[in-house]
Amino acid sequence: MQTLTVDLGTRSYPIHIGSGLLTRMEWIVPHIRGHQIAIITNETVAPLYLESLKQNLTDFQLTEVILPDGEQYKTLDELNRIFDRLLEQRHNRTTTLIALGGGVVGDMCGFAAACYQRGVDFIQIPTTLLAQVDSSVGGKTGVNHPRGKNMIGAFHQPLCVLADVNVLSTLPDRELAAGLAEVIKYGLITDAPFFDWLEQNIDKLLARDEQALTEAVLRSCQNKAQVVAGDEKEHGRRAILNFGHTFGHAIETHQGYGNWLHGEAVATGMVMAVDLSVRLGWVQPELRERTRALLQQCALPVTPPGDMTQESFLALMSIDKKVVSGQLRLVLLKRLGQAVVTSEITQERLEEFLHMVLTELSHQLQTS
Amino acid sequence: MQTLTVDLGTRSYPIHIGSGLLTRMEWIVPHIRGHQIAIITNETVAPLYLESLKQNLTDFQLTEVILPDGEQYKTLDELNRIFDRLLEQRHNRTTTLIALGGGVVGDMCGFAAACYQRGVDFIQIPTTLLAQVDSSVGGKTGVNHPRGKNMIGAFHQPLCVLADVNVLSTLPDRELAAGLAEVIKYGLITDAPFFDWLEQNIDKLLARDEQALTEAVLRSCQNKAQVVAGDEKEHGRRAILNFGHTFGHAIETHQGYGNWLHGEAVATGMVMAVDLSVRLGWVQPELRERTRALLQQCALPVTPPGDMTQESFLALMSIDKKVVSGQLRLVLLKRLGQAVVTSEITQERLEEFLHMVLTELSHQLQTS
Repeated sequence: MQTLTVDLGTRSYPIHIGSGLLTRMEWIVPHIRGHQIAIITNETVAPLYLESLKQNLTDFQLTEVILPDGEQYKTLDELNRIFDRLLEQRHNRTTTLIALGGGVVGDMCGFAAACYQRGVDFIQIPTTLLAQVDSSVGGKTGVNHPRGKNMIGAFHQPLCVLADVNVLSTLPDRELAAGLAEVIKYGLITDAPFFDWLEQNIDKLLARDEQALTEAVLRSCQNKAQVVAGDEKEHGRRAILNFGHTFGHAIETHQGYGNWLHGEAVATGMVMAVDLSVRLGWVQPELRERTRALLQQCALPVTPPGDMTQESFLALMSIDKKVVSGQLRLVLLKRLGQAVVTSEITQERLEEFLHMVLTELSHQLQTS
Repeated sequence: MQTLTVDLGTRSYPIHIGSGLLTRMEWIVPHIRGHQIAIITNETVAPLYLESLKQNLTDFQLTEVILPDGEQYKTLDELNRIFDRLLEQRHNRTTTLIALGGGVVGDMCGFAAACYQRGVDFIQIPTTLLAQVDSSVGGKTGVNHPRGKNMIGAFHQPLCVLADVNVLSTLPDRELAAGLAEVIKYGLITDAPFFDWLEQNIDKLLARDEQALTEAVLRSCQNKAQVVAGDEKEHGRRAILNFGHTFGHAIETHQGYGNWLHGEAVATGMVMAVDLSVRLGWVQPELRERTRALLQQCALPVTPPGDMTQESFLALMSIDKKVVSGQLRLVLLKRLGQAVVTSEITQERLEEFLHMVLTELSHQLQTS
């Protein structure tokens, strides 16, 4: 087992990464203040892992909340169901919520913990690769609004995170790939050697080799933790973690939640962001090819949906949280392993870029 | 004008108290980061003060959200209406929300600010005495749940507070009195000289003398700020601010939101808490008489509703947030101006006390 500490002063917390941790409650129990626990999970994860978790927590007053599975249920209404259950079972301020599930469960459980009685403790047990490398570090929690993703939320750090790579064995291929998109992101934005390592080990990762997965989760979390530690509330540099996300969110919103997986949209968004970096002359075209090849090995999409127009991109990008005072901030690459947040790209330059990308795409579609 | 700083490190903020501040935007504008403002108010306050506020904010993209008036609308659903409007008008992370109204508006606006895009700025312009002396200090925000008051919320500090005693001229008598209940609370729990001052100046306050009101608001905020500065997230001493509230919340919940005003329930709750302190031999019976007399001068209720039983008190007190790990913590007086949080009162002692209070009460009702 590997342990990494996310360094956030009084809100610092450990991430334990390894195989078979789900039943190793010695990593969890010391963190729990009271005698009440509520496990928040969903109907897909519950039949697989809820019982083994519960078996090791018999000393507590235990409540379980099983949410429907899917991004479309990441809503205020479902959040309220969690509050209903907690109040019905008389959970008090010393209760601890445990998120057992993917990013949606983690975000909702974390936000419920942030708001229940103005803040209670929570622990993350992420069961998807995406959640292990993304939502387990950084304390972003929240729900969606029909007008935009994650528009309602809070920063709330967990007490600890257990990332059990063993549970990734039951993850559908498509979700494993979506998680790998975020893993590859860390290589691109902050860690060139890790990108090289990924190119060499992608087959092992796709074959779910536990040692390779542990290494990939660890290095991803390390990279993310380093960025977050310097900018907890995303006033500056933390925004580089949104690499590929501005284009990606536009794609996700256009497709409707749940049709493209988040990681799939981010994969395409990253190719677009590398492409724009190439066209600006900031990086070599070779990096675009390497990025595309690596993502394609994971069977991830690398081009936006055929029916997305320049106008739909522009409309959906400007509602995104990455817009400050009406100015679009984009995350682009200066070189492999070095992302920057820039406001240099004018609306005109962006329109021109989208026009080129979408024209080439439609040309490819016609000739293919 | 008087200015008081609430000392919370990087989250410190000023409270300006005086007459006619509502149109003095020089106290507000320097705090605003972006070019967007959303004023959250209600249908009672809007016709009175919204226009004068707006007139002085013409340089901004202005959105207004007018909520229905009343505690029964302090819900997640109404909160979502605020999010709808903000997103519809494309407010971004640099927006500033302004709460123009009483405690309900302040709590909802503050909570909306805490959650919108994971946290934006907000400014309080409290228009009731209760809100000026209570919710303007401390950063507690939130909404109610059918199973309990303020069960969903966050700590989120405003950028600044404008407490204009001039607007209290339009406050109904009953609401003025409810605010005075909280003012009297500060005398009881932390400031004996202020309690004496209140006994001497209660007529002026009831006549809405602006100088007396400014003094009362200032000293209340000073007392509260001192307590909050030492314990922002209510892990310890801050709980003394809940003096009278454990009994009070039970009364409010029993009556249904909005039937007794919060301050009215707190008035009765405080008499009960002083009474219990007397019966424990901690304070002299004289203080109970002084407290009761001062509250009665304000025409505030000093006895619980006739239909409340011992059982209903116990049931409604135990869901209250003041319960830690199943143990009831009560705030009682050691002397005038000195409140303590105690877990010493056993369930039996409390039941005995409630039995005595309610029996005497029903006896009084029969003989009156």
